[in-house]
Order: sequence, then C-alpha cells, then structure tokens
Amino acid sequence: MIIDGLGDRPIDELGGLTPLEAANTPCFDLLARTGITGLMDPLSPGIRVGTDVGHLALFGYNPLKVYWGRGPIEAVGVGIDLNPGDVALRCNFATVDENLIVLDRRAGRIRHTEALAAVLDGMPLENGINAIFKPATEHRAVLVLSGPRLSADITNSDPGPTNEGQPVQEVKPKRSGQPLAEKTAQLVNQFVRKSYEKLRNHDVNRERMGKGLLPANIVITRGAGMAVKMRSLTERFDIKGCCITGESTVAGIAIMSGFKVLTNEKLTANIDTDLDEKARLTVEGLKEADFVVTHIKGADLTAHDNKPREKLAFIEQMDRMLQKVIDSLDNPQDVYIAVTGDHSTPCAIREHSADPVPVLIHGDGVLVDDVRSFGERACAHGGLTRIRANDFLLSLLDLMGVTYRFGS
Amino acid sequence: MIIDGLGDRPIDELGGLTPLEAANTPCFDLLARTGITGLMDPLSPGIRVGTDVGHLALFGYNPLKVYWGRGPIEAVGVGIDLNPGDVALRCNFATVDENLIVLDRRAGRIRHTEALAAVLDGMPLENGINAIFKPATEHRAVLVLSGPRLSADITNSDPGPTNEGQPVQEVKPKRSGQPLAEKTAQLVNQFVRKSYEKLRNHDVNRERMGKGLLPANIVITRGAGMAVKMRSLTERFDIKGCCITGESTVAGIAIMSGFKVLTNEKLTANIDTDLDEKARLTVEGLKEADFVVTHIKGADLTAHDNKPREKLAFIEQMDRMLQKVIDSLDNPQDVYIAVTGDHSTPCAIREHSADPVPVLIHGDGVLVDDVRSFGERACAHGGLTRIRANDFLLSLLDLMGVTYRFGS
Repeated sequence: MIIDGLGDRPIDELGGLTPLEAANTPCFDLLARTGITGLMDPLSPGIRVGTDVGHLALFGYNPLKVYWGRGPIEAVGVGIDLNPGDVALRCNFATVDENLIVLDRRAGRIRHTEALAAVLDGMPLENGINAIFKPATEHRAVLVLSGPRLSADITNSDPGPTNEGQPVQEVKPKRSGQPLAEKTAQLVNQFVRKSYEKLRNHDVNRERMGKGLLPANIVITRGAGMAVKMRSLTERFDIKGCCITGESTVAGIAIMSGFKVLTNEKLTANIDTDLDEKARLTVEGLKEADFVVTHIKGADLTAHDNKPREKLAFIEQMDRMLQKVIDSLDNPQDVYIAVTGDHSTPCAIREHSADPVPVLIHGDGVLVDDVRSFGERACAHGGLTRIRANDFLLSLLDLMGVTYRFGS
Repeated sequence: MIIDGLGDRPIDELGGLTPLEAANTPCFDLLARTGITGLMDPLSPGIRVGTDVGHLALFGYNPLKVYWGRGPIEAVGVGIDLNPGDVALRCNFATVDENLIVLDRRAGRIRHTEALAAVLDGMPLENGINAIFKPATEHRAVLVLSGPRLSADITNSDPGPTNEGQPVQEVKPKRSGQPLAEKTAQLVNQFVRKSYEKLRNHDVNRERMGKGLLPANIVITRGAGMAVKMRSLTERFDIKGCCITGESTVAGIAIMSGFKVLTNEKLTANIDTDLDEKARLTVEGLKEADFVVTHIKGADLTAHDNKPREKLAFIEQMDRMLQKVIDSLDNPQDVYIAVTGDHSTPCAIREHSADPVPVLIHGDGVLVDDVRSFGERACAHGGLTRIRANDFLLSLLDLMGVTYRFGS
C-alpha cells in the first residue's frame, strides 16, 4: 500500500504531532506492533523526489540511472508501446487565438478528447516519421515520435502555467550544436502547427464555441523524454504483479514494470476516490498476482493544500480500507503486508520534502521489533532502521522468497 | 570471528526467538554490553549472498565489481597463482560408463586424489596451452587455463546434482557470437575427453574397482570464472593478515587478500570441527598477524538442515571458544574483537536470506552503546546502526588505526 505524500512534520494544531501520528489508525498500528518497521528514503537522505521518481524507486528502478522524464511514463500509461530511442512528450489541449497566443493552457479543462485526438494520431511528419498521439485524462495527451536518431533534449512549446497570454513557444534544442535535438525540435514544431490547422475548425470545437466554451484548437508540448531499455521488476524476478491506481503516472510506471493495472472511473486519484472500490480491486488483484501495489493519491493532495485535518481524516479512511482488505482475505497468514509512501509532503510547506517516510512489513518470519504504532517518529526505532526504497522493495521480495542468491 | 550463516528469524520452538537470541552466550553478551553493536548487510538490504560473496565483502572487496565466480577462488585456495585473464573451473572426479553417462558425480566421494590429479596436471591442449590441474578436498579439484584471449562465459560439462544419469555435457559458449568463449569451451572439452582416456585404466581406479568402489574415471567441470586484478586488503593497508578456516572458499579469498591461512585436518568446515584447535590457531595467529579472521562454518550447516536447536548449541560452543581465546591473550586490552556473520541462514527457509546480521566491536575507544546482548533485534538499536560489510571492515580497521586520511 503506497500512501502518496504520507510523511509529514509536526503540526501545532495537531498538538505537535504529524497527521499520521495524530490519526486513529488501529489497523496500521496493529501491523506495526506485530511486524517490523523503519524509515525509508525514496532515493537517499535529503533528496526530494516527485511522484514519478518515488514510484520508480518503489518499483525497483534506479531513477538516477533510468529516469525517462514524465513523457515516456505517461505514454506507457495511456497504452503506447515504446521502443528504446522513442521520444515522448506530455501534451495539453489548449486554446489559442489566431496569433497563437495561449488563452487557456487547458482549453477550459476539456474532457473526452478522443475525437480530437483521432485526427492527430498518425499525422505524417518529415523524415518518414508519423506522430503517435493519444488522449490522457481531462485536457492531457501524449505525443510520441518513433524513429532512429531522435533526441529528447528539447524545450517546451507550452509557455507554462504562469505564462498564459504568451505565444506558443518554438521548440528548440536545449543546448547548441545538437543536430539530433534540432531535427526532433523541428518535428515537434511541425506537429504543433499542424494540430492548429486540424483542430481549429473541428466539429467538436464548433460545438464548444456554440456553447460558449473555449475551443481545444491546438496541442502544446512539454516534458520530452527518451525511452531507454530497463530491466523491469517482472523481468528480474519471477513474480506476477498488479497495481491498483487512478493515477496515470503510477499506472505508467506499473505497466513499464510488467504489472497489470486494475483501474476504473471510480478511482479518481483524488480525495473523492472510491476506497471501497480500491479495496475490492486489491482483493481481486491478490487472487491472480503475487505482488499487488495499491496506490492512493489523496493524502498528498490534502498536504499540497495545507489541510492537515483532511490529511489526517484521509489517512484514517485508508486505515479502515486496509482492514477491509485484510478481512476479505481467505489466507491472511500467507500474505505479506507492507505500508509506506512514495515521499513526504509536509502540510506546512505544501510541497514534497526529503523527510524519510515510515514503512512497515507484516508477515511470516519478520523480526518483530518494539515499535507499537505506525508513525514518523515511532518507526525511527524500528528493526529495519533506515533504508532506501529500492532496498525496502528487495527486502520485501526476499521475505517473499522470490529473490536469487548472488554467489554460491 | 565470522560465524557462517549467523543471522536467523524468529522460531516458534525457541519461544519466538532466533537461535542466537535464545542461546546462552555470556562472552558475546559481555562484548556487546561493553562494545558497540549494529546490523550489517553483506552487500545491501534485500540482497541475498553466497558464502563467497559475503566473504569477499568482509575482506574488503566490492563483489559487484570483482566477483570472480567460484572457480578462481577455489584455484587460489588450492595454491595456484592466478594471472589476470586466466580461466579457472571447479571440477569433480566422477564416475561415467563407456558412453560417458554420469553414474556418480563424486566417484563414490573419493578422497586422496593426488595420484590421479598428477597424470592430468600439465596436460598439453591446443594453442600451446597446458592445463593446470590440482586436487582439492575429497572428490573436488580445480582446472586452470592460463593464456591470452580466453573467456569464462562458458557452460558446464557437469550435468548437475539433479541430473545424474545424463551424459557429460559438451561445454559451449553461454551466448552465440563469442569466439573467445568458443575457443575456451573447446579447450575444456578437450581436457574432459583426455581425462577419461588417462584415468579409465589408472592403477588407482583398477584398485578401487577391485574393491567394488566406483572408479574416478573422468573429470567434469563447472563454475568457470576469470581472474581479474583487484587490490587486496593487505595491498591497501599496511597490515599482516591471518585466517583460520577449514573451508576452501574462505581460504581462497583469504589468500587472495594476502592473508596467511592457518588450517589443518582438524578443521573440517563442519559441525564436528575442532573448536579447541581453532582457538589455539587463533591465538597463534594473533602472535604474528595484525588482523586475524577466524571463520566457523557449522552454524550455517545446521540452519541449512533446519535444526535450530543444533544451531543454538553450536553458537554456544563458539561463545565458549571465543572466551577461551580471550583468556589466552597476554594483552587482551590491546586487541579489538569483532563478531559477525557472512550472511543470515534462517532455519525455517533452509537457505541464505537477505536479513542483516548482528555485528559487535569491542576494544579501546569504541563508543559503547546501550545494547546489552548480542542478537538480531538487540543489535538493531546499536551505535553502528545499520552498515554494510565493507563499511564494517573499514570501521574496524579505522579503530585499529591503520586507515589513511582522505583529504588533508
């Protein structure tokens, strides 16, 4: 169970406790009391990570070696099969005027962009390359350029969230003297220009304008990244994996890792997500997979909004959800349960921090320690001491008995 | 003192304690109480290691960079002086029929193979290469091919322990398109064929068959590895080292490290080993060396057999043995004593695991912590916290005052 943004810092209105420490979490506490606990650094102490990097580490990748950028992760998340060397970019449907000044980076937060995306997918560009273009959640989409000799070292056409009113930017190589980046930038510029030509008079946009809604009349790009070959968790170990998440980045990393993703529209990746449905899918996942990751986004969002009481309440909901999962298991004694987060998000700073997150592992054979509750400070005394996300994952797999001996 | 396979997991019949926790170990406990303790990962958390890799790390090597495979370690252990680029293979004297079907991979567990080995050592092969062949313990031996442009990336001629009744396998490159591996495989195949020709009618075998014993009429190979150049512990630090062990792998690593090995037939690398003799040799070693490693195999073997009470009893014997060593020292206050294991071997899984092992260091100047006994869970609260085998070794050497300052 990965609780996004779990870790926090002492909060005055919670009596100097963190939301997790102040929350009433009988399930987590029982697991901590009868399991082994510790503190986990996503990468290493003092390194603040994003949800993408935190999850890469928890899924067994070394982000320092293989960080693709968000584009390729999102591309995998929407079902595109990437080859090493492909360049993928995150995109927004946006609204521009006739001078390509960006009026709204999200085209009025348009949803259901399938018909618009369809006229862009497969668009022929230069050098015999066709654009691969797929819609993602809400106004988001993904562009992939597949071919030899590309580079992801290019700037964004999206002027960025603080720069509405600026024109769509020309994509350029990030540094001079990079012919591959020059070529790739030209392909992206070509795509952006053609997207305007194909979308401006699209029926969907005529209809939106008729209703007084902003048209999604262009696609703007950011976050280019190149797909690299990495050995996935399911290639390294003989396990069947399953991930329950409503979040496209986490879904992308899970798919890259060879995991099946169970999701549906009830999982919103927000605090209104359906935790009963998440519990149900977790139990379903455990029936067919050896290793099930259930990701819950809400705690992170409440912390970004500096709402410690909402974070506390959401953590209590997750505690009840996990108890429900355990109560539904036919053979709880055969299941290892681990709870942690992908990073800390202290409410007070409304931002991810490098504080380590508490972690617990419960199951057969663990060296039960003296820790009596699940919290940032309690777990600092745990038997796992302080470990890194990769090491935590391997320790869990080792308890499960699926690791290999190095040496003889 | 390296207790092979020391670490374990909670065991019901020991009241939920580990063998080390349940054992009566007044010497270890006093050293823990008046020393500094911690948990040690052989490589890093979650990585399960073999005895070879665990000892490489404890002798200061980085196994991720320099793991030779078992062949070269065993070759050094039997006294062969390897050059970088040499390929070494572990061998068994075996019994085959006239169709080279393996009837017994150990030739009836033959001992004293010196006369048989003598007719194979120096055998001329192709390309001007002569086989170097030396007997090891019981039915085991080592083959070294010394020359330029060889490769260890080859398969085994030994069909393996679960495949008796299969023919001797043809050695091949592990992957296609490897001309050096192709050439090396041919040399090994040639050696194996010739070994049959030279051994089948050897006097020793005629005599064995006369007694109804299986003839050692062929040599089969496995575990090819290439010698690489590594800076040894005694090259990195100005120390004189000595190792007391009955185990050929540990002896090989100690010799590679520039240590003198003290051993004799009373050290069996089994639970019947003579611990009094081991204590005597340890005291003898301390008279001439700065750094003495005493390795004891028995605990690991009892754990592989899932015999927790035997493991406990053996640990108690080791505790008494260490007390005997301390009592024999003229100047115990001038000696640092460290106790740990090369890896954990939980009885319940009868196999090495990645669980960290407890470690203690006793001696002048250590920051004595609050830990009152030597055990897996007690040491999780120790002042060394959780460290890696390489780091533990360097910390011990630093206390001894033989390390160098990095920087000025």
